[in-house]
Amino acid sequence: MPKLHWEDFKPGAVAIYGPRLVTREEIVAFAAEFDPQPMHLDEAAASATLLGGLGASGWQICCLLMRMIADGFVLDSTSMGAPGIDEVRWLKPLRPGTQIRVRATVLDTRASNSRPAMGFVKFQYEVLDDQDAVLTTMVSSTMLVRREAGAAQ
Amino acid sequence: MPKLHWEDFKPGAVAIYGPRLVTREEIVAFAAEFDPQPMHLDEAAASATLLGGLGASGWQICCLLMRMIADGFVLDSTSMGAPGIDEVRWLKPLRPGTQIRVRATVLDTRASNSRPAMGFVKFQYEVLDDQDAVLTTMVSSTMLVRREAGAAQ
Repeated sequence: MPKLHWEDFKPGAVAIYGPRLVTREEIVAFAAEFDPQPMHLDEAAASATLLGGLGASGWQICCLLMRMIADGFVLDSTSMGAPGIDEVRWLKPLRPGTQIRVRATVLDTRASNSRPAMGFVKFQYEVLDDQDAVLTTMVSSTMLVRREAGAAQ
Repeated sequence: MPKLHWEDFKPGAVAIYGPRLVTREEIVAFAAEFDPQPMHLDEAAASATLLGGLGASGWQICCLLMRMIADGFVLDSTSMGAPGIDEVRWLKPLRPGTQIRVRATVLDTRASNSRPAMGFVKFQYEVLDDQDAVLTTMVSSTMLVRREAGAAQ
């Protein structure tokens, strides 16, 4: 199957990926493994925290975002990975039983100076709940293969 | 037991947390769940990628960092969580069989304007391998309870 290349991503393009239902069991299991703070493990303890009740670890939200975009487009692309993350903002709690989706927006694209066969696509990702409230935002660039290595942009 | 408060973190302070041995089985299991890209799943496919061989998902590195700092100080503190992440840089691959640690450095601290009972501590975290090479860096602020709410800084 043909794969998405760097040139296929245009600034302003928007897509929605998911959905994914997040259960209480997943939230507690993830927290027990990676982020065992009370607000991610136990309703009673969580009610006394800033989250105001049990909510997923912010890292779990990032991991679920990654899985939704992997299934949504990354695995159908020439992605070479990402050099890092520019920003994550955890705005609202992710509660048990919420169905989430990801809205991906292309912020900009640029060719790589050091690797003519590659370009960067900078995305803003928003994790949305059932009511389209934005729970988390993330900005990150993905490296993709160019159809025409070194061509003028 | 007494808990660490905002005032206990001073700019320039450094601590090491961990270690944690990362196995091939963990790398593949995490990738299969959250980040099923070839370079995190299969040696042969990974050898043709920028990673040059099987390496952990960058998200797994972040999650392991979280677990090491949770055990290292967060669970012994008055941490109220984090509003987000300022930056992550995945500099070198995390290979199967590597023992990692975290070096945490306090970059700066500031009281909250809107919540007098709370302050922010900005940390730089570095994930180190057995040879002290820096695999990943992360900058993030944690919210902590102040011993003296609203006191002059």
